[in-house]
Amino acid sequence: MSLSLNQRTTKRWSVAEAVDGCVRHGLEAVGLWREEVAEQGLAESVKLVRDAGLRVSSLCRGGFLTAPGGPARQAALDDNRRAIDEAAELGAACLVMVVGGLPGVRPGEPLSDSGVSRDLAGARGQVAEALEVLAQYAGERGVKLALEPLHPMYCADRAVLSTLAQAVDLCLPYPEEQVGVVVDTFHVWWDPRLFEEIARAGRRIASYQVCDFLQPLPADVLLGRGMMGDGVIDFAPITRAVTEAGYTGDVEVEIFNADIWAADPDEVVATMKRRYAEVVTGD
Amino acid sequence: MSLSLNQRTTKRWSVAEAVDGCVRHGLEAVGLWREEVAEQGLAESVKLVRDAGLRVSSLCRGGFLTAPGGPARQAALDDNRRAIDEAAELGAACLVMVVGGLPGVRPGEPLSDSGVSRDLAGARGQVAEALEVLAQYAGERGVKLALEPLHPMYCADRAVLSTLAQAVDLCLPYPEEQVGVVVDTFHVWWDPRLFEEIARAGRRIASYQVCDFLQPLPADVLLGRGMMGDGVIDFAPITRAVTEAGYTGDVEVEIFNADIWAADPDEVVATMKRRYAEVVTGD
Repeated sequence: MSLSLNQRTTKRWSVAEAVDGCVRHGLEAVGLWREEVAEQGLAESVKLVRDAGLRVSSLCRGGFLTAPGGPARQAALDDNRRAIDEAAELGAACLVMVVGGLPGVRPGEPLSDSGVSRDLAGARGQVAEALEVLAQYAGERGVKLALEPLHPMYCADRAVLSTLAQAVDLCLPYPEEQVGVVVDTFHVWWDPRLFEEIARAGRRIASYQVCDFLQPLPADVLLGRGMMGDGVIDFAPITRAVTEAGYTGDVEVEIFNADIWAADPDEVVATMKRRYAEVVTGD
Repeated sequence: MSLSLNQRTTKRWSVAEAVDGCVRHGLEAVGLWREEVAEQGLAESVKLVRDAGLRVSSLCRGGFLTAPGGPARQAALDDNRRAIDEAAELGAACLVMVVGGLPGVRPGEPLSDSGVSRDLAGARGQVAEALEVLAQYAGERGVKLALEPLHPMYCADRAVLSTLAQAVDLCLPYPEEQVGVVVDTFHVWWDPRLFEEIARAGRRIASYQVCDFLQPLPADVLLGRGMMGDGVIDFAPITRAVTEAGYTGDVEVEIFNADIWAADPDEVVATMKRRYAEVVTGD
């Protein structure tokens, strides 16, 4: 396994800057975001990573499959097809899928009086249905969809996929090269079934992402992700389990954190490399 | 099942005021907290609930079993024995157990540089060990310990018991009258295994607590509990499952919420009764 910079960790950096930063710091892979790729231009982003000899460990992100029916749902599927096309162009190891929360619940916003669904089982069913459509499209383009279970505190507004077990169950009907799962330490560290489910996921693990779980959580819980070693997660046993499950891909560091975003990106990458060696690999 | 006021919902009320409030609003049961019982005096609290003809649906709370070894651990066990004695005196249907987080992690405080354990499996093992000691003591005094799985966002600082499955597994070695589980909608609503685990818990369900999961979460996530109907939880199917599992006890409403604490307690109780009928029982 080798270390990859997810570009949201160095949020200020464009694709060009992140690619340059990876090269300067001796990293072999980068995780890209669609928004930043669009700003740089898809063709130019492809050229930048190829010329630099970098692997694209993931493209973030597709998903949001729980839109209410009709046009909103169709638009979501169309957007996911574009994301799959982009992942194919970039040669990304996978397209990370954040499946969406309860229909009508908007992240960070108060609940509206109407149009909010509380049908959690229904939303989960919608995800499974949308996956049927998208897995085939992804398979035809050689892209692997990576289903990301999010921490249960995001169940209502970001992802009704809340456990690794659920993600593994969802991907099993599809070929291994079409649908896999993301193991992100922040989201799954608390799970009493974590080690069994990593073993069960086996070669379905499409992406291993690391960052710490901060304590106490900041006011915006989305930004509770911290540099490895700054929070409560014991990384080494999880890394070992992921390795033993057969994962040989890159290890992405994806941190949403106001202090880290305010810091000098080069220092952030240097710290990331040091902490990775100290607390993640356990070497 | 009948509605019970957990006194923390009307935080300003003493035991005497909460008992009086329950009587005035026609409630048959009250959930008490050790701190407020101590302020009122244990003997006086016992007399107040008996004279009012109220059931004590629970005493909150024992637990915090993950203290580092030695004197701190012994002090925690001693305090739990006192809590069990108090629950026996009050004739409480159960003593709610919040098992504690990672050793050395203090709720709401930044992590200290030393003394913080990241050994989650170890902390969970400590809980199981402490339970062996306390279950017997509780059994001898006719008190039922009710293990409360807390939402995974509290795993590090409040309870390493994160799922209903885990709680059910922990209580199965003990007699039904000694150890059971709490089903609190706020903590478990997201769980993909919720309905299977409620059925498996069966008569192990010692307490059913309801409150809503607010969106977005407030800055202090402890206060993300809302009045039923104000958040994202679909209560009726959960209530139905708890009933079908054989639970016939009281339904406690326990809300930690700055706005509700600032409101007139009598209005809060009136709203609670209305919402209970509208969204919890599904009648």
